[in-house]
Amino acid sequence: MSSATTPIRFGIIGCAEIARKVSRAISLSPNATLLAVGSRSIDKAQKFISDNGLPASTIPLAPYDAVLDHPSVDAVYVPLPTSLHVTWAVAAAKKGKHVLLEKPTALCVEELDVILEACRENRVQFMDSTMWMHHPRTEKMGELISDPTRFGEVKTVDSIFTFMADEDFLQNDIRVKPDLDALGALGDAGWYCIRSILWANSYQLPKTAVALRAPIKNNAGVIIACGAQLLWADGRSATLNCSFLAHLTMQMTVIGTKGALHVTDFIIPYEEEKGSFTFVSDAGFTELVTGWVPVPSKHEVTADLPQEARMVREFSRLVKLIKEEGKEPETKWPEITRKTQLVIDAVKKSVDNGFEPVDIIG
Amino acid sequence: MSSATTPIRFGIIGCAEIARKVSRAISLSPNATLLAVGSRSIDKAQKFISDNGLPASTIPLAPYDAVLDHPSVDAVYVPLPTSLHVTWAVAAAKKGKHVLLEKPTALCVEELDVILEACRENRVQFMDSTMWMHHPRTEKMGELISDPTRFGEVKTVDSIFTFMADEDFLQNDIRVKPDLDALGALGDAGWYCIRSILWANSYQLPKTAVALRAPIKNNAGVIIACGAQLLWADGRSATLNCSFLAHLTMQMTVIGTKGALHVTDFIIPYEEEKGSFTFVSDAGFTELVTGWVPVPSKHEVTADLPQEARMVREFSRLVKLIKEEGKEPETKWPEITRKTQLVIDAVKKSVDNGFEPVDIIG
Repeated sequence: MSSATTPIRFGIIGCAEIARKVSRAISLSPNATLLAVGSRSIDKAQKFISDNGLPASTIPLAPYDAVLDHPSVDAVYVPLPTSLHVTWAVAAAKKGKHVLLEKPTALCVEELDVILEACRENRVQFMDSTMWMHHPRTEKMGELISDPTRFGEVKTVDSIFTFMADEDFLQNDIRVKPDLDALGALGDAGWYCIRSILWANSYQLPKTAVALRAPIKNNAGVIIACGAQLLWADGRSATLNCSFLAHLTMQMTVIGTKGALHVTDFIIPYEEEKGSFTFVSDAGFTELVTGWVPVPSKHEVTADLPQEARMVREFSRLVKLIKEEGKEPETKWPEITRKTQLVIDAVKKSVDNGFEPVDIIG
Repeated sequence: MSSATTPIRFGIIGCAEIARKVSRAISLSPNATLLAVGSRSIDKAQKFISDNGLPASTIPLAPYDAVLDHPSVDAVYVPLPTSLHVTWAVAAAKKGKHVLLEKPTALCVEELDVILEACRENRVQFMDSTMWMHHPRTEKMGELISDPTRFGEVKTVDSIFTFMADEDFLQNDIRVKPDLDALGALGDAGWYCIRSILWANSYQLPKTAVALRAPIKNNAGVIIACGAQLLWADGRSATLNCSFLAHLTMQMTVIGTKGALHVTDFIIPYEEEKGSFTFVSDAGFTELVTGWVPVPSKHEVTADLPQEARMVREFSRLVKLIKEEGKEPETKWPEITRKTQLVIDAVKKSVDNGFEPVDIIG
């Protein structure tokens, strides 16, 4: 196999539910292949391979170290509970494995920094698994809001991700457990809201985070619903609302001085093959204020591959550049991750300190 | 003319820009007719009649008292600056004229109470001019969110109304003048957000209002952009964002336990003839979380008349019941107005007291 066609060989560490989606994405990505699945037992790994119809050549491994020790594994996808990320992402980096890490990436930025430092030291690519970033719709939306003529400057962003967890989730899911995913709904749903707000603001960190009142915590103290306001020094602002206790909603509204963008399925598009959004520029009203001129236009963007496969493809492209051409890891992705984590931490701190503003220092 | 076909005869007090739209609405409403236009000078009143192609029979009157003193005027529409509402709405009520009052209805609830008391004492109908309430779409949306099977119980509402005022507006419009419309963007754009939040919550008053940080005021101290969070004792919450400094956006998202409603033109529908919204119930994801099942459905509702004409028709219907059948004024409308004003006042107080929570006491 020539270098140009040698796929990046993935190992998965942990047979989480989300790993099913990403293992398919690895199969769909033209420059990646799933080499091994690691679990705490070989039986569990083998069951995951069989249950998900993965190629019989996929190697079941146990325990997780076996994936890191496998000489043919180039990169690992880590969907373990957040509390285990620092251990396993660092271990992977030290073994020279590139790291695709599930979100939230860490319990706090200090932990994340340990991971990122290990990746830097070992010259491995780091990327978090925020799939919607890789949809071609996101690129198209980014072009529109970067256009000073049509959009002007961003003034405010409103981002909501809620879903209605069932009783089993609220009792047993790792995302409600303080020892597993202590950031709860903020780290899970809120991650996407915060990322979307940073994305819309060209990744400029807000100056301040202020939690909204009345966050909801479970008996173990884990956030299961909360909101926040983010503020920039120049007057820009954003609001986010994340919850496990309200019907599925995932919308982002970005309002500029000259235009507005709106999308109602930004994290998981309604349909895999395409994604749409609306955009309007310089809208006003008819003379008697009885209608809009113009009305927002619907834009539809077709995806050549599912967004998670595009993520794997982009990650693998970067890994190949490092592996085959001696390039340095792309720093854009860990930088975006770190900013997201910084904002998460500030919102959490404001929730915990009685809704006082918390400065965000990059 | 038989009683059944005798239209309610309107007088307009003040030739504001919005009066053009409402004078057309009075013409379009089958049970109403525009009898007189009052201004500070007969010339201005005559010019308004000519400029807007109103029937030559429309009587120009000056000053405003002349409208109230005209024996054939049944009802007045009052689009004067808010600071003049208490004077003219009370004067109208005392003359036995029914009152259709532009929003914001008063500078504070104490002033509004003076108006409402005058209307009660004089047995005249009161209604504020919040047009979208009367669109048949609003009724349809209300049916859906009242359905416990499809929507469950409301958990949160997010309501945004922003528009980009030009320099002339920001310098000269009555809505930025402390002596005319001292509530600024909160009283203008925020009125609609607060009304939509109350509407979605079956007009149950929130317990608390907390202003968001970084409201923007002009040099005269008038709010030109602000936001707030509203909280109910049972855990429901809402956020609102209103601004004169960001591109036109008017969206309401109502999220329940079992469904979600979303509308992006709730105040002024994109087109006069119809209005649409999306609704989804019990949505989840495909097995691999690669799409929604079901996706939200678009509902389109045709309007037999423009929403403002439907408002005039409803107001006139109530006036006719009082005038011709001896019925009492409908109390629903002033009650909704008062709740809206109470929340406006609480948000304003929280803006002014450094974002502290303000109790709302009905």
